[in-house]
Amino acid sequence: MRHDGRRDDELRKVDIRKDFVIHPEGSVLISVGETKVICNASIEDRVPPFMRGEGKGWITAEYSMLPRATEQRTIRESSKGKITGRTMEIQRLIGRVLRSVVNLKELGERTIWIDCDVIQADGGTRTASITGAYVAMTIALGKLLDEGKLKTLPITDYLAAVSVGVDREHGEILDLNYKEDSKAEVDMNIIMTSQGELVEVQGTGEEATFTRQQLNNMLDLAENGIKSLIEIQKEALGDLSLIVEENIKKQGENK
Amino acid sequence: MRHDGRRDDELRKVDIRKDFVIHPEGSVLISVGETKVICNASIEDRVPPFMRGEGKGWITAEYSMLPRATEQRTIRESSKGKITGRTMEIQRLIGRVLRSVVNLKELGERTIWIDCDVIQADGGTRTASITGAYVAMTIALGKLLDEGKLKTLPITDYLAAVSVGVDREHGEILDLNYKEDSKAEVDMNIIMTSQGELVEVQGTGEEATFTRQQLNNMLDLAENGIKSLIEIQKEALGDLSLIVEENIKKQGENK
Amino acid sequence: MRHDGRRDDELRKVDIRKDFVIHPEGSVLISVGETKVICNASIEDRVPPFMRGEGKGWITAEYSMLPRATEQRTIRESSKGKITGRTMEIQRLIGRVLRSVVNLKELGERTIWIDCDVIQADGGTRTASITGAYVAMTIALGKLLDEGKLKTLPITDYLAAVSVGVDREHGEILDLNYKEDSKAEVDMNIIMTSQGELVEVQGTGEEATFTRQQLNNMLDLAENGIKSLIEIQKEALGDLSLIVEENIKKQGENK
Amino acid sequence: MRHDGRRDDELRKVDIRKDFVIHPEGSVLISVGETKVICNASIEDRVPPFMRGEGKGWITAEYSMLPRATEQRTIRESSKGKITGRTMEIQRLIGRVLRSVVNLKELGERTIWIDCDVIQADGGTRTASITGAYVAMTIALGKLLDEGKLKTLPITDYLAAVSVGVDREHGEILDLNYKEDSKAEVDMNIIMTSQGELVEVQGTGEEATFTRQQLNNMLDLAENGIKSLIEIQKEALGDLSLIVEENIKKQGENK
Amino acid sequence: MRHDGRRDDELRKVDIRKDFVIHPEGSVLISVGETKVICNASIEDRVPPFMRGEGKGWITAEYSMLPRATEQRTIRESSKGKITGRTMEIQRLIGRVLRSVVNLKELGERTIWIDCDVIQADGGTRTASITGAYVAMTIALGKLLDEGKLKTLPITDYLAAVSVGVDREHGEILDLNYKEDSKAEVDMNIIMTSQGELVEVQGTGEEATFTRQQLNNMLDLAENGIKSLIEIQKEALGDLSLIVEENIKKQGENK
Amino acid sequence: MRHDGRRDDELRKVDIRKDFVIHPEGSVLISVGETKVICNASIEDRVPPFMRGEGKGWITAEYSMLPRATEQRTIRESSKGKITGRTMEIQRLIGRVLRSVVNLKELGERTIWIDCDVIQADGGTRTASITGAYVAMTIALGKLLDEGKLKTLPITDYLAAVSVGVDREHGEILDLNYKEDSKAEVDMNIIMTSQGELVEVQGTGEEATFTRQQLNNMLDLAENGIKSLIEIQKEALGDLSLIVEENIKKQGENK
Repeated sequence: MRHDGRRDDELRKVDIRKDFVIHPEGSVLISVGETKVICNASIEDRVPPFMRGEGKGWITAEYSMLPRATEQRTIRESSKGKITGRTMEIQRLIGRVLRSVVNLKELGERTIWIDCDVIQADGGTRTASITGAYVAMTIALGKLLDEGKLKTLPITDYLAAVSVGVDREHGEILDLNYKEDSKAEVDMNIIMTSQGELVEVQGTGEEATFTRQQLNNMLDLAENGIKSLIEIQKEALGDLSLIVEENIKKQGENK
Repeated sequence: MRHDGRRDDELRKVDIRKDFVIHPEGSVLISVGETKVICNASIEDRVPPFMRGEGKGWITAEYSMLPRATEQRTIRESSKGKITGRTMEIQRLIGRVLRSVVNLKELGERTIWIDCDVIQADGGTRTASITGAYVAMTIALGKLLDEGKLKTLPITDYLAAVSVGVDREHGEILDLNYKEDSKAEVDMNIIMTSQGELVEVQGTGEEATFTRQQLNNMLDLAENGIKSLIEIQKEALGDLSLIVEENIKKQGENK
Repeated sequence: MRHDGRRDDELRKVDIRKDFVIHPEGSVLISVGETKVICNASIEDRVPPFMRGEGKGWITAEYSMLPRATEQRTIRESSKGKITGRTMEIQRLIGRVLRSVVNLKELGERTIWIDCDVIQADGGTRTASITGAYVAMTIALGKLLDEGKLKTLPITDYLAAVSVGVDREHGEILDLNYKEDSKAEVDMNIIMTSQGELVEVQGTGEEATFTRQQLNNMLDLAENGIKSLIEIQKEALGDLSLIVEENIKKQGENK
Repeated sequence: MRHDGRRDDELRKVDIRKDFVIHPEGSVLISVGETKVICNASIEDRVPPFMRGEGKGWITAEYSMLPRATEQRTIRESSKGKITGRTMEIQRLIGRVLRSVVNLKELGERTIWIDCDVIQADGGTRTASITGAYVAMTIALGKLLDEGKLKTLPITDYLAAVSVGVDREHGEILDLNYKEDSKAEVDMNIIMTSQGELVEVQGTGEEATFTRQQLNNMLDLAENGIKSLIEIQKEALGDLSLIVEENIKKQGENK
Repeated sequence: MRHDGRRDDELRKVDIRKDFVIHPEGSVLISVGETKVICNASIEDRVPPFMRGEGKGWITAEYSMLPRATEQRTIRESSKGKITGRTMEIQRLIGRVLRSVVNLKELGERTIWIDCDVIQADGGTRTASITGAYVAMTIALGKLLDEGKLKTLPITDYLAAVSVGVDREHGEILDLNYKEDSKAEVDMNIIMTSQGELVEVQGTGEEATFTRQQLNNMLDLAENGIKSLIEIQKEALGDLSLIVEENIKKQGENK
Repeated sequence: MRHDGRRDDELRKVDIRKDFVIHPEGSVLISVGETKVICNASIEDRVPPFMRGEGKGWITAEYSMLPRATEQRTIRESSKGKITGRTMEIQRLIGRVLRSVVNLKELGERTIWIDCDVIQADGGTRTASITGAYVAMTIALGKLLDEGKLKTLPITDYLAAVSVGVDREHGEILDLNYKEDSKAEVDMNIIMTSQGELVEVQGTGEEATFTRQQLNNMLDLAENGIKSLIEIQKEALGDLSLIVEENIKKQGENK
């Protein structure tokens, strides 16, 4: 058993609270254990200059942590006047993986702005952000559908993210909290669809290496974890999940 | 009656939720109507370079809004790479007024960092920030007292803030929400102690002016509003409020 | 008597020198005691993007100090690569209060740029800037009127600014110089029109508080100080002051 | 056969030219097909502030492209005044993977600065940078060993990087050039040691997904490609490679 | 005769007004025709980090223009957040040439900050800045000498600057105003000592070239112009000029 | 004889290697002794906003050094977030002098971007950059001519640059390497055409002065050095040099 009583293949308690903030088109507060992230999705009726006239939409993400989301206060990036490399990596990742489950043509010349603001951090903030942002984004698009601005929901599949790692003592484990993460030998983030297809794999063994066997074990853990996360997303989406499933089915038939 | 059913001298519903985030020494979520601000207080065991060796503490504040705290998404200041004039004014104000009710000598060479992050905005975010930050700061100092790092609670009085304004239709009104604020002829922020003393008065009539009579009416409204806000602070502080009151009494005797 | 021989309700010697710089549409050097500010007004035939097409003008201000305007050399903001919070507050203030006495519709789609550059500082630089900028702006608009680019002078009233404060020894005093300002318990800036109406009130008691009685005394002092300043503005404006007075009279009749 | 005549599992022509620039402690020009990167390694006799006094060294990397390394001229990051997210990701990656094959304790309180400057780009610049930087770094450390500043060569293994991907037509392919990269469905960078252990796996399917079978095929291709790259590194290192092999053997025995 | 009635070898009217600002150790307002520059010299009792412990002083200069020093308003560099290339060139030039006539050893570990702020521009602002800054600097050093902080005046010679150019119509001319400067074929700045030695020569023929004969003619014009400027500097310096001349004589003897 | 065996009037070995990088319209690697600079010329089919609609072209240059071009590693300007004064001076210089030998009207509304990237530095990097950039630019324009996008080659003359200086021991010397440059009393850069006309003269005697005789000697040295450099440029240009010479002849006749 791990230090917080979990089995190696066990997720932390996950909760997705809808309509957390009143203004955004889609807004959720996702909690994964003590990690809490506000995920807001905003729709803008135009695309960035480099995409104009192509009849396609765009999804872009921003990620930030409140200074005291962490044990030690961190300096605001607005005070520093620049964004750290870590933040850039995370926001590029969030945007990229969400784009893989959205039909950008059906979205039309619109931009979806995803804002992930971590108000409390205990490991896995980037994976929680992706899992929550998927729900906020789908809600926002559902609203467009309701208002008749879209003919179809341009979502092609579910998408969730989870961290896995190699612990000196426990071997491969699922969903690391901060304490586990800071002493892990290997740290990996996996993003998958409901069909078990990989969207992104990022594994790194800083000051350590890992074998292909360990990689496979981690992928197995992640696959199961993501299945559970997608069940929680479905619940949060309610009726909207029926449309998503319809879309998945159609795509399967078209293949 | 105002558009939301309030009397001219009526505050919105105020709620102060303690321990909103687990890491900071003091953390509250203050709600004033639909305006919601996370106020965190962090204690650092040193002062900025310009104050070293003076045996005195310092209080500094940072203020930010999530991009979708507002009706329209606003660009992050970290993306712009600089802080707007409005943000600077607000964070200077929060730090300045909190310093007026803290005995910086008793605090010793420590810095209190106040972080006010608006997660939802509906007018009065700067006054809500001050009212909430006072509670977060007092809780953080109470923790230092409990841990024996301070001999006394270096708080000299309560402190709360409220907005008042002149409405074309209703005349002088208390605690403006966003809709009222955006069409007010005069906009004023008043910060006072429990003893009815003024700490800061900022009144501005952009594209309009106001008379001394109107100023006096607004000050009367603010005085009553602040009394109510301080009652809510007392409740949130619980036993700590007894020490604050003791401090106020001692000061009265010393005068 | 104060340390420089003035009574509590006495202004320093004020001088407004016109046409100090040859290029701007309006240019004055204002001296308030040893405080000296070059105030230049420039007219641009367009408004910022957010105002285009509304048929209204805009007034914006920039404020800066030469590095050796002060006793100790201060670092240039251009070298630091950013503007301090204090500068931002002041330039926002100058623009805001000037807009309150200009009919922006009559101005048409033009921007008035106000540049206040302090070449020597001895307290009260922001209030001297406002008092001087009003004159520079009115001269620039007078030039537009002469050239037939405006049909009327879009100035609705005089406007001047003065500082007041509470001194430990002297109580409430008018027009603080640097020495008085740095040890004042309360520091307040009042901006008023010739009709005795308030445009802006900013009072702050850092590490101190003040009563409503003190506030009233300070407002009385300011009211008289501003009357004297407006007399000096009238003299500087010469014949233009006749048009301003005409405009004030018309407005009174329309009320 | 691919558009440039290669088999799916075939590397481009790789060349490592030593001593390309005279000043650095280690300097190579690596060519991978038409991709050319100058990799310089500099030794500094101190570590960054956050590591002082720990008796350990540090490795940090910077990556840049000349404006006309690319088909279209790109704007210099120094002109923009900030580093793009892509550059940050790459330089963080280079530093991180090199640290995995250096014994930082044996390095002592020194920093190795790696500079990878792409002078001509045709896909795979980040993997070429890593493969070249490994050689430059090892040469620089060999120089310290020769000068008696190090007792042992603190290199624990070889390290090379290669890209793999999924092509719509060819399926899984090794070492993509720019043309292949820009139309690939999946893009993956693999970094491995000579022992076949993984150091980093980064796979992304923007607007596409991939199966675990495809992932395995790509890993097989990469494993072979990296073996060949390490042979070329050995040749470039000459006698130094004997010491590296000795180190690998010792580690194997200690396990 | 030139458009303003001057002969080709004639300077504009030059005036050096001392003690223009009260705070700096040395302060002059130099007027060269309609070009007006405030030159302030400040003494700081330490040198920049890269020079500490060498027992030598340093001179550094900053140059700026008020936005309406020019016909068209220019954007403040503090608003842009960076200094233009032109400003950098000028401030590097001013510091460099002043250092050539100061004995930095005799100055000791002090920094002289030169601030040249152009309040009105009509061509030749950089040369006027140098000529005025020399006087401000010498006055500031004279003050140190008077206060016994220096044993000798560490000034080795006079130094003045002038512009020369080639005009399409008039050929080589001295001291160009803005109108002449903007249509000159060749633009040159010459800085010399009272001994006729060159300190800096900067000649440029953008979209034109010039012969060695033209260069010689321009140098002749400059030599005479600088002699006149140095006479005006002497007058401004008063008794201090006697010490400078003494210093020049001693140096001549030591050669 | 100088420390590297050269006579006072002797250039270092100069080599111009064409087509060094494949993507740019013109690309050379110029070596002047151990100084090596990649000079790339790119053609863009539009001009900067301030020049649009004038029917003329523009030439702009950027200059940078790799961090380890120098003996000690220098910090990247992209990491610092701003360009140094030295870099700005150099890139302004390169652009300005190249514009003096291009007929901007014949170029049409195009921008030539010159990128000079120093990969190895041993003194004279700015003059090597100019000499190399001229060749890269002429090759790029030759390509436009070949493609029929230009009717004539808009080059009016050759242009090369060289440094000269005054050495304590050797007196006036040509083409200083880093060792000589760092102890020279006077440092001068001369840019000339093949007709012996001056385009730019920049001489500076930091902490020293120089006589007109010394200036003349340096100009003589430079004149000869530049003749040799232009011969090397001719060789590198091959057949293109015939067109340049034709252009020079025509201009001579038109004068």
